[in-house]
Amino acid sequence: MTDTTPRTRIGGPVMPSHARLRPLGPEELRIVGGFWGEKQELNASTIIGHCLTWMERIGWIGNFDRAAAGTVAEHHDGIEFVDSEVYKLLETMAWELGRSADPQLEQTYLSLVDRVAAAQEPDGYLHTSFGRPGQRPRFFDLEWGHELYCFGHLFQAAVARFRTGHDDTIVAVARRLADHVYEVFGPDGRDAVCGHPEIETALAELGRALDEPRYLELARLFVERRGRRSLKTTLFQGSEYFLDDRPVRAADHLRGHAVRAMYLAAGAVDVATEFGDAELLNAVERQWESTVARRTYLTGGVGAHHQNEEFGSDYELPPDRAYAETCAAIGSVMLSWRLLLQTGDSKYADLIERTLLNAVLVSPREDGRAFYYANTLHQRVRGTVPAEDELSERAESSLRAPWFEVSCCPTNVARTLASVASYVATASEHGIQVHQFADAELTTTTGDGVAVSLRMRAGGYPFDGSIVLEAESGAETELAVRIPAWAEGARVSYAGAPVEVRDGYARIVDEFRPEEPVRVELPMLPRFAYPAPAIDALRGTVAVERGPLVLCAESTGLPSGTDVDAVLLADDRPLVATPTGAEVTVRLRPQAHPGWPYGSQPAAPGAEEERPLRLEPYFRWANHGPSTMRVFLPRAGG
Amino acid sequence: MTDTTPRTRIGGPVMPSHARLRPLGPEELRIVGGFWGEKQELNASTIIGHCLTWMERIGWIGNFDRAAAGTVAEHHDGIEFVDSEVYKLLETMAWELGRSADPQLEQTYLSLVDRVAAAQEPDGYLHTSFGRPGQRPRFFDLEWGHELYCFGHLFQAAVARFRTGHDDTIVAVARRLADHVYEVFGPDGRDAVCGHPEIETALAELGRALDEPRYLELARLFVERRGRRSLKTTLFQGSEYFLDDRPVRAADHLRGHAVRAMYLAAGAVDVATEFGDAELLNAVERQWESTVARRTYLTGGVGAHHQNEEFGSDYELPPDRAYAETCAAIGSVMLSWRLLLQTGDSKYADLIERTLLNAVLVSPREDGRAFYYANTLHQRVRGTVPAEDELSERAESSLRAPWFEVSCCPTNVARTLASVASYVATASEHGIQVHQFADAELTTTTGDGVAVSLRMRAGGYPFDGSIVLEAESGAETELAVRIPAWAEGARVSYAGAPVEVRDGYARIVDEFRPEEPVRVELPMLPRFAYPAPAIDALRGTVAVERGPLVLCAESTGLPSGTDVDAVLLADDRPLVATPTGAEVTVRLRPQAHPGWPYGSQPAAPGAEEERPLRLEPYFRWANHGPSTMRVFLPRAGG
Repeated sequence: MTDTTPRTRIGGPVMPSHARLRPLGPEELRIVGGFWGEKQELNASTIIGHCLTWMERIGWIGNFDRAAAGTVAEHHDGIEFVDSEVYKLLETMAWELGRSADPQLEQTYLSLVDRVAAAQEPDGYLHTSFGRPGQRPRFFDLEWGHELYCFGHLFQAAVARFRTGHDDTIVAVARRLADHVYEVFGPDGRDAVCGHPEIETALAELGRALDEPRYLELARLFVERRGRRSLKTTLFQGSEYFLDDRPVRAADHLRGHAVRAMYLAAGAVDVATEFGDAELLNAVERQWESTVARRTYLTGGVGAHHQNEEFGSDYELPPDRAYAETCAAIGSVMLSWRLLLQTGDSKYADLIERTLLNAVLVSPREDGRAFYYANTLHQRVRGTVPAEDELSERAESSLRAPWFEVSCCPTNVARTLASVASYVATASEHGIQVHQFADAELTTTTGDGVAVSLRMRAGGYPFDGSIVLEAESGAETELAVRIPAWAEGARVSYAGAPVEVRDGYARIVDEFRPEEPVRVELPMLPRFAYPAPAIDALRGTVAVERGPLVLCAESTGLPSGTDVDAVLLADDRPLVATPTGAEVTVRLRPQAHPGWPYGSQPAAPGAEEERPLRLEPYFRWANHGPSTMRVFLPRAGG
Repeated sequence: MTDTTPRTRIGGPVMPSHARLRPLGPEELRIVGGFWGEKQELNASTIIGHCLTWMERIGWIGNFDRAAAGTVAEHHDGIEFVDSEVYKLLETMAWELGRSADPQLEQTYLSLVDRVAAAQEPDGYLHTSFGRPGQRPRFFDLEWGHELYCFGHLFQAAVARFRTGHDDTIVAVARRLADHVYEVFGPDGRDAVCGHPEIETALAELGRALDEPRYLELARLFVERRGRRSLKTTLFQGSEYFLDDRPVRAADHLRGHAVRAMYLAAGAVDVATEFGDAELLNAVERQWESTVARRTYLTGGVGAHHQNEEFGSDYELPPDRAYAETCAAIGSVMLSWRLLLQTGDSKYADLIERTLLNAVLVSPREDGRAFYYANTLHQRVRGTVPAEDELSERAESSLRAPWFEVSCCPTNVARTLASVASYVATASEHGIQVHQFADAELTTTTGDGVAVSLRMRAGGYPFDGSIVLEAESGAETELAVRIPAWAEGARVSYAGAPVEVRDGYARIVDEFRPEEPVRVELPMLPRFAYPAPAIDALRGTVAVERGPLVLCAESTGLPSGTDVDAVLLADDRPLVATPTGAEVTVRLRPQAHPGWPYGSQPAAPGAEEERPLRLEPYFRWANHGPSTMRVFLPRAGG
């Protein structure tokens, strides 16, 4: 492990005290355009404002004003954890301000912080739903109250502000609140945990940022206290739901509520890192391994059950009932990132890429004004478009909704987009590692003191596989560029010579110089993805991927009146690349089946004519009105 | 339509005023032994006592005592609808007393009725959870309070008592309560419905039994008021969940919560019958048709979602996440029975047989002391055996549990078994119809006044297909014997000559005499059942049926340590009948799949050796400890 000196206040969302790879902060790496640049612009220009407008309109921000005015017990808008959405928006704004110093956004941000800060109570407690006369008592309902969960998001908002160079109001608010939580739940306090993990990773980061060992200790306590069945279960939610069925270090796989599982695992890695707890780290690595092999969708999404938003059993991955909550995918990215920093293993960066581009990016609509909460891989029925001014009650809408009663996903997407540059590259003792491809500028110093300035040109990615990296100044150092596991046949050249790919990275050892660009050519030919036989729900089907993107068939590409369930994919025919997807050969079969649907003979294969069909990126589906969609298509021969 | 004169107080659970077929009461048809006789004995000797003991132990019966004593507001046991479990037990006991006059059971029954009656309030209202100081007000929470639902079950208990020849306490209690409900919710009352249908069919039957048109009118009102989105929805339960999204007569398919859907549809048939509403009847027939073709498991079970215990989309029938609640199967039998009486169409009797023998009978454990609530068709993981003295919190246990916090299924199984004779046969204007096979004695009079006494010998059924019917006395009449749709090649003979099968019935027209037995031979060779291609979750699999029974592979029949998910069925090899199931040829494949479970090539078929495997009836699975199980097995060649 490398000590990530020089310790700096400036940085990204995750800054472990010790790690093999040191993450880069917003001043060290900037996305300057291209695909991710456009997403960050959409976030800045639209998504942030969309979240703000909605939360003003439906009173979630107003809750803080009423808390300050002493009237919130009479009138509180939204469920118990809407405070956290405001905090996630604050976190988003802080990262965005770190990226682009927009004075108007700064003004909006500071004013919103002031409204939050005004609601803090003298002892540091800050929650709009609990503790006042007429409200339920503080920490009365740890299972469902989400108080510590909300605090966690406030801490992450404070970390974002602090790491972008400001030690101001929100940081002070977080300090007071964290001190209060330490008093109530610390070593001499109440021996309990929150129903929804989040505070663990947030406290660890706040402790790192503010150099406060008590916060790290409290994070450790919250991780260690979990798994003792202390949380009261209900008719439908057992201890497994809460990840409270066994200690983190004793578990073999992720289970229960998928978002909770991912957030807890991320917090456990933080704690393992700070306390040098190899056993705990190994346990989480093992859980990650098993989850990726047995409980993860092709998109990187996780959570196979709508019921309880939970993981299913091993290999239980129904595409039509994929819950694959956006927040769970974001949690998966958080977890993989922490493991990547600790291990340097490219498999974590591979999953981050897959998950970000497919399971996360499918959530926001192209215009940034509507979001998926759950992300199916198979839509059988054309949905109805939710009204643009209507609060969506249910997470299961077949089309993106502008806002939800439980609206964790839009603000989570926003904070992820605002800080997505943090996943692009790292520094180590002796060099620089590029994990994700984007149009970006990097300026940093390696652990051994070499200043590096680097320009990555990857504006056409993820559609185009040509990437160029040029050092702009600085001395010689090592450069490692991730070559995704899917990119068989990738070519990397430096100074006219091919570069060897080893352990998932093309490595230019000890000699990366300004004069010569590194050229990476990733093969963007579409390819089939066949599910393992153990995945019952996908038997006899095949999907198509192109580069890092999962493709899908959408009814918008079919003759009018035909739905995707009529499509059989002729996987013995060639796959042809298109600019953004693939053209495949399909047959259409009759969809209806009259009468009792179980017969004494296997269904005869239809003799329909072959026709071409364009598959497009999954993350772009449902941007053109109601449609049906499939990622996995039945094989025409099967 | 035949007027079912002579109108008699004696009868079964369903006695329409007008019907093509007249159901027979407990005095007209008795099961005297064989398969169903054993089930009824198990019910009498064990299940009834089991239910009683549990409900005494956990205070659900005590609630009535405390209501009478005025202390129930301080201490109420169980959720809002536990009253209904006591009522379903009373209904069970009444049917059982009609079948076998056991003085000790009579004593227990009367004493239990008295305890219930003592809790009735002066105005007729009777519920242990609402309306007293310290409790929520009456009819305050129609969505979730289940008051009218509980009343419905009380009415059905009263009908059972009345139809078995007693107009005593429980009947008087029901009258007073029904009058109260009429006052509150009748034509001049509150224009509302209950979140959980049940009272519709119960009021219709109480009205029929007591010849009270107001109750029929109230049933009609509750059916007609549904579908106007009057019930408040929640984050997860929309109007569809409550069947409140559109009027019954305007709906094309059953949807939402499966038990609610079935109970409401049954009530709608009752109302359509009593009011001669052909449009309403046709709507429900259409819904039945579509549900059977697109939303029904091979077992007859319904409800594909654990989330909300709901139907899924068309053809969304995952075997592993089959919720297939026992109560929904019972509701399906109730619905099919009503449609059979109205139409005489054998398809309804076919589904009743399939559903009773597979989806309902799988619930009780062989010893009658534990029950399934949800009924999966694919168990991947060996479960743990719930403790015999422990209340089960969750419906999803992989092994049968002795009792549940929501324990609707055990008492529903009990009342179904106690009255199962009612499904065996009917009378019409000119004859007798045998719909189900059992060792039974029938003595009745046809609509045109012919007295018939008949003995059916079918003790080996459903394992053995030999059935004999002999008239014991009586004049000549028509006899129709259902030949199930699965029984291709069935032979029926009478007086040495083959009998023609027409529209699902072997019909001996106008000449069925005492002297000659009717002999039925149903072919009991196992046969494959291939799912329609539209059922994505079953692609590439096949199941095996034998007679009316769905078979399954259970790990108990495999080498130690092997699970059913290793089994591929070689469906090009012969099926061999065993005494209760079938022997098939299978191959075992490796179960684990290392690493990322999506690859560039289809999995190569394993080259494992063939071996025989015995499949046994699905309804008997999990009676020998923890196991894994599959109904549909992947095809070895597919």
